[in-house]
Amino acid sequence: MKTLGVHIIMELSGCQADFLDNVEKIKELMIKAAIAANAHIKEAVFHKFNPIGVSGVVVIAESHISIHTWPECGYAAVDIYTCGENTDPWKACDVITEELKAQSVFITQIDRGIPTDNNRFVHTLHTTEEVRGYVESS
Amino acid sequence: MKTLGVHIIMELSGCQADFLDNVEKIKELMIKAAIAANAHIKEAVFHKFNPIGVSGVVVIAESHISIHTWPECGYAAVDIYTCGENTDPWKACDVITEELKAQSVFITQIDRGIPTDNNRFVHTLHTTEEVRGYVESS
Repeated sequence: MKTLGVHIIMELSGCQADFLDNVEKIKELMIKAAIAANAHIKEAVFHKFNPIGVSGVVVIAESHISIHTWPECGYAAVDIYTCGENTDPWKACDVITEELKAQSVFITQIDRGIPTDNNRFVHTLHTTEEVRGYVESS
Repeated sequence: MKTLGVHIIMELSGCQADFLDNVEKIKELMIKAAIAANAHIKEAVFHKFNPIGVSGVVVIAESHISIHTWPECGYAAVDIYTCGENTDPWKACDVITEELKAQSVFITQIDRGIPTDNNRFVHTLHTTEEVRGYVESS
């Protein structure tokens, strides 16, 4: 199935709060993730919020990578969106999940820009969850 | 259901090619959309690709709004991601869909950062499609 892009949407829980509130470290991590995905960085824009939280986007030639953090919840919302055949968005996911020490990751992969017979474009969704440190309640 | 953010993912088809390849007009449109959603703009980063296409992100205090265009296909991939109760991402969607004169819009709304009983965060998905100018093949 031909698709113009792959967009990975992640909810990361149980992350280290200090890391999530450190704009310099978050920026460094997102740039490292973009490089791991073999993306070409055009610009990186990051902001620290008062009193808490970081937002940032790395604009890449192949689309974008973004993060928004809630340190008080140990939570980060991450998007990895790449186009073309030379990038691997999952490598960026691995870097981010590993360095933030996320205890669970709830993921939807969206294949974007899938052409239909009617000259329209649609997307498909596939959701998975990885739980590391948590014990499920029964 | 408490949620930390609403993320609208749109595939817009049948858009005006000239508009999709004009980086200044696309930037102006995305800023207008952010304002329509009552978002607070922190930064706007846009790029024109050679030979064709535009990418851009408006970083807002409430998350981000992005666009990636394929003028040769009349196609644009748009994300509107807002947090908090004072923004309305659907107003941004309406502005963009209207001005690009999209003939069909394939949309998934993702409610992000939904806390579970296990201190994890997940998201939910809801997909819809609006077809304007096209006639369905049977």
